[in-house]
Amino acid sequence: MDDGDEDRIVDFYRRTNILGESYIPMQGLRHTEIPTFMRAPFVTDLEQVDIGIIGIPYDGGLTFRTGARHGPREVRNQSSVMRSINVATGARPYEQARIADVGDVQFRNLFALEEAILDIERFYDAIAEAGVIPLGIGGDHSVTWPILKALAKRQNEPLALIHIDAHTDTWSEFTGSKYHHGAPFRLATEAGVIDPKRTIQIGIRGGQNFTDGLDYSRDKGMRVITIEEFEDLGWQAVAREAQRLVADRLVYLTFDIDGLDPAYASGTGTPEPGGITMREAQRLLREFRGLNFIGGDLVEVSPPFDPSGTTALNGATIAFEILCLLAEKIAK
Amino acid sequence: MDDGDEDRIVDFYRRTNILGESYIPMQGLRHTEIPTFMRAPFVTDLEQVDIGIIGIPYDGGLTFRTGARHGPREVRNQSSVMRSINVATGARPYEQARIADVGDVQFRNLFALEEAILDIERFYDAIAEAGVIPLGIGGDHSVTWPILKALAKRQNEPLALIHIDAHTDTWSEFTGSKYHHGAPFRLATEAGVIDPKRTIQIGIRGGQNFTDGLDYSRDKGMRVITIEEFEDLGWQAVAREAQRLVADRLVYLTFDIDGLDPAYASGTGTPEPGGITMREAQRLLREFRGLNFIGGDLVEVSPPFDPSGTTALNGATIAFEILCLLAEKIAK
Amino acid sequence: MDDGDEDRIVDFYRRTNILGESYIPMQGLRHTEIPTFMRAPFVTDLEQVDIGIIGIPYDGGLTFRTGARHGPREVRNQSSVMRSINVATGARPYEQARIADVGDVQFRNLFALEEAILDIERFYDAIAEAGVIPLGIGGDHSVTWPILKALAKRQNEPLALIHIDAHTDTWSEFTGSKYHHGAPFRLATEAGVIDPKRTIQIGIRGGQNFTDGLDYSRDKGMRVITIEEFEDLGWQAVAREAQRLVADRLVYLTFDIDGLDPAYASGTGTPEPGGITMREAQRLLREFRGLNFIGGDLVEVSPPFDPSGTTALNGATIAFEILCLLAEKIAK
Amino acid sequence: MDDGDEDRIVDFYRRTNILGESYIPMQGLRHTEIPTFMRAPFVTDLEQVDIGIIGIPYDGGLTFRTGARHGPREVRNQSSVMRSINVATGARPYEQARIADVGDVQFRNLFALEEAILDIERFYDAIAEAGVIPLGIGGDHSVTWPILKALAKRQNEPLALIHIDAHTDTWSEFTGSKYHHGAPFRLATEAGVIDPKRTIQIGIRGGQNFTDGLDYSRDKGMRVITIEEFEDLGWQAVAREAQRLVADRLVYLTFDIDGLDPAYASGTGTPEPGGITMREAQRLLREFRGLNFIGGDLVEVSPPFDPSGTTALNGATIAFEILCLLAEKIAK
Amino acid sequence: MDDGDEDRIVDFYRRTNILGESYIPMQGLRHTEIPTFMRAPFVTDLEQVDIGIIGIPYDGGLTFRTGARHGPREVRNQSSVMRSINVATGARPYEQARIADVGDVQFRNLFALEEAILDIERFYDAIAEAGVIPLGIGGDHSVTWPILKALAKRQNEPLALIHIDAHTDTWSEFTGSKYHHGAPFRLATEAGVIDPKRTIQIGIRGGQNFTDGLDYSRDKGMRVITIEEFEDLGWQAVAREAQRLVADRLVYLTFDIDGLDPAYASGTGTPEPGGITMREAQRLLREFRGLNFIGGDLVEVSPPFDPSGTTALNGATIAFEILCLLAEKIAK
Amino acid sequence: MDDGDEDRIVDFYRRTNILGESYIPMQGLRHTEIPTFMRAPFVTDLEQVDIGIIGIPYDGGLTFRTGARHGPREVRNQSSVMRSINVATGARPYEQARIADVGDVQFRNLFALEEAILDIERFYDAIAEAGVIPLGIGGDHSVTWPILKALAKRQNEPLALIHIDAHTDTWSEFTGSKYHHGAPFRLATEAGVIDPKRTIQIGIRGGQNFTDGLDYSRDKGMRVITIEEFEDLGWQAVAREAQRLVADRLVYLTFDIDGLDPAYASGTGTPEPGGITMREAQRLLREFRGLNFIGGDLVEVSPPFDPSGTTALNGATIAFEILCLLAEKIAK
Repeated sequence: MDDGDEDRIVDFYRRTNILGESYIPMQGLRHTEIPTFMRAPFVTDLEQVDIGIIGIPYDGGLTFRTGARHGPREVRNQSSVMRSINVATGARPYEQARIADVGDVQFRNLFALEEAILDIERFYDAIAEAGVIPLGIGGDHSVTWPILKALAKRQNEPLALIHIDAHTDTWSEFTGSKYHHGAPFRLATEAGVIDPKRTIQIGIRGGQNFTDGLDYSRDKGMRVITIEEFEDLGWQAVAREAQRLVADRLVYLTFDIDGLDPAYASGTGTPEPGGITMREAQRLLREFRGLNFIGGDLVEVSPPFDPSGTTALNGATIAFEILCLLAEKIAK
Repeated sequence: MDDGDEDRIVDFYRRTNILGESYIPMQGLRHTEIPTFMRAPFVTDLEQVDIGIIGIPYDGGLTFRTGARHGPREVRNQSSVMRSINVATGARPYEQARIADVGDVQFRNLFALEEAILDIERFYDAIAEAGVIPLGIGGDHSVTWPILKALAKRQNEPLALIHIDAHTDTWSEFTGSKYHHGAPFRLATEAGVIDPKRTIQIGIRGGQNFTDGLDYSRDKGMRVITIEEFEDLGWQAVAREAQRLVADRLVYLTFDIDGLDPAYASGTGTPEPGGITMREAQRLLREFRGLNFIGGDLVEVSPPFDPSGTTALNGATIAFEILCLLAEKIAK
Repeated sequence: MDDGDEDRIVDFYRRTNILGESYIPMQGLRHTEIPTFMRAPFVTDLEQVDIGIIGIPYDGGLTFRTGARHGPREVRNQSSVMRSINVATGARPYEQARIADVGDVQFRNLFALEEAILDIERFYDAIAEAGVIPLGIGGDHSVTWPILKALAKRQNEPLALIHIDAHTDTWSEFTGSKYHHGAPFRLATEAGVIDPKRTIQIGIRGGQNFTDGLDYSRDKGMRVITIEEFEDLGWQAVAREAQRLVADRLVYLTFDIDGLDPAYASGTGTPEPGGITMREAQRLLREFRGLNFIGGDLVEVSPPFDPSGTTALNGATIAFEILCLLAEKIAK
Repeated sequence: MDDGDEDRIVDFYRRTNILGESYIPMQGLRHTEIPTFMRAPFVTDLEQVDIGIIGIPYDGGLTFRTGARHGPREVRNQSSVMRSINVATGARPYEQARIADVGDVQFRNLFALEEAILDIERFYDAIAEAGVIPLGIGGDHSVTWPILKALAKRQNEPLALIHIDAHTDTWSEFTGSKYHHGAPFRLATEAGVIDPKRTIQIGIRGGQNFTDGLDYSRDKGMRVITIEEFEDLGWQAVAREAQRLVADRLVYLTFDIDGLDPAYASGTGTPEPGGITMREAQRLLREFRGLNFIGGDLVEVSPPFDPSGTTALNGATIAFEILCLLAEKIAK
Repeated sequence: MDDGDEDRIVDFYRRTNILGESYIPMQGLRHTEIPTFMRAPFVTDLEQVDIGIIGIPYDGGLTFRTGARHGPREVRNQSSVMRSINVATGARPYEQARIADVGDVQFRNLFALEEAILDIERFYDAIAEAGVIPLGIGGDHSVTWPILKALAKRQNEPLALIHIDAHTDTWSEFTGSKYHHGAPFRLATEAGVIDPKRTIQIGIRGGQNFTDGLDYSRDKGMRVITIEEFEDLGWQAVAREAQRLVADRLVYLTFDIDGLDPAYASGTGTPEPGGITMREAQRLLREFRGLNFIGGDLVEVSPPFDPSGTTALNGATIAFEILCLLAEKIAK
Repeated sequence: MDDGDEDRIVDFYRRTNILGESYIPMQGLRHTEIPTFMRAPFVTDLEQVDIGIIGIPYDGGLTFRTGARHGPREVRNQSSVMRSINVATGARPYEQARIADVGDVQFRNLFALEEAILDIERFYDAIAEAGVIPLGIGGDHSVTWPILKALAKRQNEPLALIHIDAHTDTWSEFTGSKYHHGAPFRLATEAGVIDPKRTIQIGIRGGQNFTDGLDYSRDKGMRVITIEEFEDLGWQAVAREAQRLVADRLVYLTFDIDGLDPAYASGTGTPEPGGITMREAQRLLREFRGLNFIGGDLVEVSPPFDPSGTTALNGATIAFEILCLLAEKIAK
């Protein structure tokens, strides 16, 4: 990155208020102004953008508690607390890339899951075509299937996947539909979109009525790390395992907020007690620096189930850690 | 009703605990035992039942805030506060009818609104076939369309309708679907299931982007009483207007909790400030005694948006008032 | 307004998403996209704007419970529920005026009340210079003093004032400062910015340690309508009284959310039980159609004290009613 | 009251801080210092006190939702908002009487309802002996029975009673105990402590499993004003009815917060939708000026069921209105 | 267990809805139907039952914050999230035993702690007589004393006890009563119902005014593991210690939710910061597989103090882990 | 300490109620009476006091979420749960020192940060002059600067500092003011009030827009222990590091509640995910026994952002641990 780049990037963040004064919204008072993701500029001309943060306010794929459609709004709101330097790692994403809130996926039929999936795919097609790296904010986990589909179809091999979650989300049909928030990675495996042998699922736990999903993950060769194994190994060893599996392949990172313990994320659709702590989550994610990321997402924040806002705050914090990983890719 | 009936009814409510002691759950401590609707017995053999209270935990027809799928559970919980005598009117529904919680509509495909509608219709077909009077607890307002369809197809003329709500719910397509929680009464009118000239809509208010729904109601001859007219006339005059329109026709009563002001019902999908108070609602409903009811429902309680539980408490109270109206029909 | 105007206005609201599709944000799904006020476009070039909605996230003038600095954010969030037609009055503000969210007043020193007052005045100077009609969203009530000052200095006579509130806000010093949220209308009177004889204060109530403020209002000739008088007269008569006082003078409307009863607005700094209902507030405001408005504001929404969001929802609803009054002025 | 009295009263309220500065806590910042009732001084030497505000943190008499034991603490907290002048009536209680927080009734056996009743009686014996007028803050309504007993035994005729509540609280045994929160006024009638013919019960409503309590009230000659009759008559006429019944007899005023609608008081043990509004409550109470009060109480605030604090705020406001009535008695 | 057993067990869980369709409630949608514990069938004929889950909605033994009487209801509600396979251990309790919700203990006198204790004992007598293994859901911890009494009197030696809690609950009298939620294990030791030398208390912490309880536990030979020792040893070593103490004796497991840190269980009567995490609790409990359990309980969930529901969710999760331990006993 | 001291101390805590009975408030029922800090006596004559707990209800130094002014009230409320013996360490502070709630700092100008700073300094001057050891309860962290100033000016060398926090609070100007809650330790260093080389900052984390504060801390020689280093070293090693740095110097301990993870302290102004747990915090603090403390504080509890009260409960618990450290100093 040369000096011209730096200037170009600084200019990208600068705005002018009604008084004609120039300012950088991300450095304003945190409780003020319109809450875009991370207070990044709202830009819909993708040519100006390196990393696009995308709201995906859809929760039609949920099987239990609803509300994830309200996730992008509240993550936007809480993300005003994020700042520009990741002190723990030294990363300065806003100096490495032009990062924008590029708005929400629009849904042409709110009531038809399969059409919603197409709408998401279509939106991500445009993102991918423009060479923008996406950071999606859900919405329920069903949104990740069309994301992966859109991103992978422009590559000549399946994607590697780092997946942090309480559930493997490799289940088959639920009440007659193969599309739902417990199925994206089965759909992606079946379609050759992800490589199960380069897929790691971290934090898996909770009871089940059928072992179908877990069996599928293991049968296909995914590396399933239960919360018990996670605790026994420690985050460092788990990170190394992920690095080994992913190696230099293009990799997508998907973080379901229910991977965290409900003490950190009560506001989610299917909370599972006994999960990852925020300290573990942050340190785990930081170990993924240097991997070859194609995009990432943070899903399943359901604000109505957490009036304290802590779930969305933690979601925004996770999203910022992912953003730092993606920005590094741009900077290379 | 002769003495044999009375005994039969008392027996219906009696249960035996593990100690072999006989008791009537509705008279136990209100914070104890399993929360059925009104603490009525849970019975699925319809032959034993006069009035069936039905949970309809579906919210796939919502256009904005989700959560009404959790309504039946919380209304069941709060309804334990209800008692057996309506002191204001003297009604004693549990002496007039065998009232049961008959369980929830089961959904075979959680993700397909049109199939959900068929599931509801099928459930109500069974209710209607058995001669049971239904009191439905939603769920979003899209559930009322299949209810009306099932009930009306066994009658030889369209039903009259008393509809209390902030919205006319006679809208046309929303994001490409004609089925949604803003459309049930347009669908019912189009299908000849309700008689718009014997339909009264009470409490209508709130802004609109299009006047489509309101225009439809008025064009078809429904009597639309806005909240302003409601206030100017008073609940007594509004009740008389409803009685006049309905006369001796079979009539269905549908109460959308958002007809109440958000001070009484913050926990709903599309709150509209400036609504009906609980005192008005209760007195209005009591004026409908003696009408020829075929069933009723209470919809759109969305518990995640009201942690205080007051919305569901008010919903349970409304449901009890409706129950009194329905029981009187049985007693006749 | 001719056809050219209409086209110009429609164009103003149209946006293009990343797919190159044109859309009107105010007509999108209400839980989606970035929450500007009323989902109006965010515009900082005042030449394009007729009515500017302004966030004033300042609460340094509060004397008791803090949090009003978070008001603009949450009113923005809840205002997505607002729509474009006021069904009760038929008003269609977005067809009458180019309405924009023009952002927040920026504060150069967060810790100095007197400097904050200057920042607000400076912002409103620019608004007034541009001929834009302002609708301010507070913030505590101390923000109204610099607003009035900026607006009045361009007029050749003091402004009339319609003031809805639990308190007269004509107090003198509080802990040594004459600037605070209980003093704006004393400051404005002293400075000749408002005409006390054309000032009406509606909804006044609550205990006091000193009668200083009430005495001042009455001594200066303001028409103080306590909540008791409001109830006895009814909203129609109160509205007529306001119209009579204001007549054809330029008038500013300021609505402190604590004018409402805490059942409607628990989320405020100094709640006073026994207040105005939303039905009364809406009908009262609608009576002010046709007055010669120079601007208005809605203040004292303090979201941390109302996790249900109802206070901000009611605040957004009040703001929409005021917006309709202001747009009519543009249309004339 | 002569000048000496005035000085004596002012001195009573004055305190000295660690800096040796004199101040009046009731005039300090409302969010500061230790929350006594109304910020009145905490005094346990009854010789200095005219009116004693008493916490009665007992809820062992509840039949459903618990938590009223936490009422006095939260009413103390919210009562800091109260001020010294009742603007609506002009009453200035702190200039008329030495008002103190005299602490809480101590319970020697937390688990034995009958002993708790004795503890309350013993505490009120001391109050009565000292000639102090009591304002009790509950606790559940079972506390009023020993209060009445202690106060009446020093009089030579039964007390008149003004009772605002959703329930008549004249029930007989509940699960084998004649002492509980639904029975105080039956106990008091049976014991000749109150005169049922000079008892008025206002706001009565809600379903019942048995009509026992209502029948008792009516059979004994109490004037039962249901919420429907209250609404039809209006608060003025109800107040006149109370004045007529009470005439010049010594009268006790007991206000159960569940007399209010749950929109105003969700935080209570047995909420009953369709109740009194705060505006009605305040105006009703003010009409009782001039009656010959012997004491009063505010009961059944249950803070855990209202995290917004509004119930306790309304409770504190009701308590302040009662305080004004009691202070007037001292001043006479 | 042979095939006949398996069929018998499957039949036990099958139900028929009003449409005549057979279904297994535990496999239905989790937000639907009537919330029994774990969605197990509600059965009161003990002959059909192997493990009975019992609600004990009593909180008259509390010394501070009330509300545990509402515990069983909310644990029932949240327990719908539980499923049939414990993935971490492979346990499938519903294939090993006929598990039912057998209803709540009924209280004949709500106001008399000693009678409540008798009611619980009487209920558990019936359970024990029928050879049903009980899993109790409280209610405050005072309920465990009569449980232990009823279970032990049919054995010829005192029971071993695994007790997870912040407090030893071996205190003597509190305000004059030896029965209260801080005393069950002193009462049980005194009565020879538990063997203190085979009793382990895990997670003990918090300040004290008197060391009476701690001293008693230690003097009698109980193994008291403070939270500090728990942390230093780790859950594995603590589990081994418990196994060693208990050996092959009949053992009862009692889990007070306040053993968890308030981050996991704010909704409890006497929260003590610095407690056990859910991950530790789950792993600790799983180590107890193979012990000779006679029953267990989960107590002190107080829903009013946790509107997020997380405490009850964690309580349901703990209860499911205990259920797995109990079912294994049946299967042997 | 001889026997006379012990008697003197016991007498200090004894009070007499209106019945003339002697009692010790700290041993009463925890939900009763007026909530002073720890239920210690409220005393303003400093001659009687060894340790004074001081409320500092000021939050004018906040840069983001307000509400810390309500901290002292809610910490007082929750601190009733504290007891007199620290079971983990055996400390019995109330037998070692006369501990009192000495009231709140009064603010002469609520709106002027610099004057508030003077008010705090003046209050602490009196404390220091009287030889009372202060335990301050904030309020935002800006209050610690005048505290340190008042304490240090009576010493002949700068103070050592143990500082637990998410932030270093050594920032320079914010919006033009050098006084704010992110600056106290820079101000104190600049003024020679603390010795940066004997200052340790523990738990530091969170993003930054500028590294100014962190750079300052490190440049001046403070020992900055980030949360990552804290986790890697463990609390024991961190404690040893603090002991080594502080040695026998007079040391002040300041605990910002945001040092805890938001799972333990959502109710604070600038929450930073990934923080210290309560178990770590308690054990860390206990290691500081024997250091030469001059005072301490607990700041930044913001109750409106945590309706569960857990943040204030944890704050009270931290404050009790600090109190034990301070009392030991007196006892020496």
